[in-house]
Amino acid sequence: MQDLHDPRDPRDPYASDVPGTREEAAARDAADPLAPLRALFEIPAGLVYLDGNSLGVLPRATAARVQQVVRDEWGNGLIRSWNSAGWMTLATRIGDKIGRLVGAQPGELVVADSTSVNLFKVLWAALSIAAAQSPSVTSSHAPGRRIIVSERSNFPTDLYIAEAMARERGFELVLADAGEISGRLDERTAVLLLTHVNYRTGAMHDMAALTAAAHAAGALVIWDLAHSAGAVPVDLHGAGADFAVGCGYKYLNGGPGAPAFVWVHPRHVERFWQPLAGWMGHAAPFEFRPGYRPAAGIGRYLCGTPPVLSLAALECGVDTLLAADAPARAAGFADGTQALRRKSLALSRLFAARVGELCPALALASPADDARRGSQVCFSHPTHGYAIMQALIARGVIGDFRAGDPAHTKDAADILRFGFTPLYVRFVDAWDAAEKLRQVLDSDEWRRPEFNQRNAVT
Amino acid sequence: MQDLHDPRDPRDPYASDVPGTREEAAARDAADPLAPLRALFEIPAGLVYLDGNSLGVLPRATAARVQQVVRDEWGNGLIRSWNSAGWMTLATRIGDKIGRLVGAQPGELVVADSTSVNLFKVLWAALSIAAAQSPSVTSSHAPGRRIIVSERSNFPTDLYIAEAMARERGFELVLADAGEISGRLDERTAVLLLTHVNYRTGAMHDMAALTAAAHAAGALVIWDLAHSAGAVPVDLHGAGADFAVGCGYKYLNGGPGAPAFVWVHPRHVERFWQPLAGWMGHAAPFEFRPGYRPAAGIGRYLCGTPPVLSLAALECGVDTLLAADAPARAAGFADGTQALRRKSLALSRLFAARVGELCPALALASPADDARRGSQVCFSHPTHGYAIMQALIARGVIGDFRAGDPAHTKDAADILRFGFTPLYVRFVDAWDAAEKLRQVLDSDEWRRPEFNQRNAVT
Repeated sequence: MQDLHDPRDPRDPYASDVPGTREEAAARDAADPLAPLRALFEIPAGLVYLDGNSLGVLPRATAARVQQVVRDEWGNGLIRSWNSAGWMTLATRIGDKIGRLVGAQPGELVVADSTSVNLFKVLWAALSIAAAQSPSVTSSHAPGRRIIVSERSNFPTDLYIAEAMARERGFELVLADAGEISGRLDERTAVLLLTHVNYRTGAMHDMAALTAAAHAAGALVIWDLAHSAGAVPVDLHGAGADFAVGCGYKYLNGGPGAPAFVWVHPRHVERFWQPLAGWMGHAAPFEFRPGYRPAAGIGRYLCGTPPVLSLAALECGVDTLLAADAPARAAGFADGTQALRRKSLALSRLFAARVGELCPALALASPADDARRGSQVCFSHPTHGYAIMQALIARGVIGDFRAGDPAHTKDAADILRFGFTPLYVRFVDAWDAAEKLRQVLDSDEWRRPEFNQRNAVT
Repeated sequence: MQDLHDPRDPRDPYASDVPGTREEAAARDAADPLAPLRALFEIPAGLVYLDGNSLGVLPRATAARVQQVVRDEWGNGLIRSWNSAGWMTLATRIGDKIGRLVGAQPGELVVADSTSVNLFKVLWAALSIAAAQSPSVTSSHAPGRRIIVSERSNFPTDLYIAEAMARERGFELVLADAGEISGRLDERTAVLLLTHVNYRTGAMHDMAALTAAAHAAGALVIWDLAHSAGAVPVDLHGAGADFAVGCGYKYLNGGPGAPAFVWVHPRHVERFWQPLAGWMGHAAPFEFRPGYRPAAGIGRYLCGTPPVLSLAALECGVDTLLAADAPARAAGFADGTQALRRKSLALSRLFAARVGELCPALALASPADDARRGSQVCFSHPTHGYAIMQALIARGVIGDFRAGDPAHTKDAADILRFGFTPLYVRFVDAWDAAEKLRQVLDSDEWRRPEFNQRNAVT
């Protein structure tokens, strides 16, 4: 067996040197042990899809599975399917599968609600635990530790949830730029709330180092894995993390608005009753007794009845990631996530190098350092990012666009985002996408009126 | 056109007199203007399904619609479908349709999350508004109005959510029996939280009278419409209600775990920022700006990204109810909900009369008075309700079972629940179900061991 663990090894299909021709890119695809996984997806003909960081592609198994749930389990089984079709255990069964992707043990992670709602649960719990630990605590408002620290460019919903909770519970939300976070952690910090991989730039935090820094300051850490789960290897236990949430519809390919997930370290999970105390998180939901008794372990982070159709689709998506284990191991990798990470970086290196060469109007907005970049590459354009992306989509390459924030000089420029999902994106796709981006920019076709009318979602 | 509004009119297919033979029951079906609606559903052959109050039957349109969402909108449209397929407006579009069933105006009701999560949002908001109104208020803990009043036999998840919030925010949860609720409302009451139709017994509160009593005491009212929406006419504006939530998977036929809904009276909706401040409730979610600004109106009660597959199925379910409008109006009713209510009562009267005659071991546990009964009929058995229901299911009649609460003498007995969904249940179904229940009881077949092993959900 080849040693595929050294990117300097020329036999490595994910080698660090960048292909110099389309033929060399095609040769990488031919040598890629993960290439067969593309057949697990329904990819529209002629489309290069670089937006799996926003909505993953439809897995080939999903349509039939959802039909089975609709026609057989719901249509024929009706109410009986809560038992006979295993609906009651879907949230934990899928949770265990996602756990394998993020370094959680079986029984520690459940699928539930949305990322925003799960963030509310864990932030509430973390603030309460931090308050209880605080030496000067005299009330639930924790005069000793009253600050939530987060990143200024964190995904807005995370900041909105934190802002609302800070206001309601008497905490303060402090925002820092990425490089200044460690310096803002001190004896007043209750919780550090971070998204592991930045949604705009793809910049990835060092989860272990920042977790250790927060713990050294006596604070708890919540990691949002929305752009990490299924995209980069995550080791929650290895990092010593306290809480995590994440998204089902991005790299997990669970479908539009797929339910999200929540993980709590076993050392915390039974220390607190999270306040979204719905019946599915009860120790015995079908006793129908007044008086809440939370389920043992992570089950208490469930709330209401889960959306079974969307859960079934999510499981198909998660299964596409677990399918990477076999070919990855056959090629000498420890598991699928390790091989996917190596391929993702090889794809994004190729794309970044080609765009850097072909498109001088664009500036790299993601870290050039592999170790600091997630599974996306972003470029900034001072003014016309939206129209450029629309013109590129018209040429059959889908990425997406995030507007700059004029109030924040570091993030003032428009961002073109390109997500690289190594399950289904090929080296020739990265090559062709860069070429089409060059054509859009060289032709000025992005100036056409139809590419300059903004929709709600881009 | 016949006058069908008087149940004493013998020409009325939903007349108050009970058919005396199966042939007479079949004649009611033949005269029933709503009978054609049964063809909108996929009902397993030979099954009498009296559990639509727990999980509605699969509408015939749903499977194809869900496939369209999966294959075309997600598979081919991918991220573009947030605009092109209208995913961004699903929550309000379906909300407006549900609004027609519960007396809400367009733009006042949205579909989001689960009933439990929505209850958390409105209870938080109501407590905050009540606290702000309280003359002696000095903090968000509202020393003047510190009590949440609810019903002892309310659905447990409602009580769990209220219990958790009361604990966290310094309120007290006071539980009363149904007849004693008005007497518990006073100057210390912040919020009255009630489920309109009781999940165990089908007993229905007088929404207008209890709302008026709460308002007279200076309290706000939250109505849980889980067993009302699509089952009984509801007029939120007519009752002067303040807040409402409800369920998508019972009488709305939205599928297992379908998303729920939330309504806030326009006089309250912009008075408060509910704390589950996710990005979908932001005034401009795609600006991606830090700093929460809630959407105008009910949009601020959205939170995270909605589960599109489950939403699409819910819309098909809601459409089955709206389909009752045309035949109902043709038959002289004001709208579908009025005709559905009349048929529902005619069905439950027939079933209750037949069971009362044939099954002396069972006692009626629902109000005999039509005006006080929702769309279900329940019977109690002192000890063996579970096994009796299992044996009945084996005979092709699905109802469900709720255990008695030994801590509460009034609810100590086991309950057999039978939901009557007039969209698809026939008069002969009610007749046959009573006959099969008699056979189960007369034969003692419910004593078999296989009917006495309890599963998680029944």
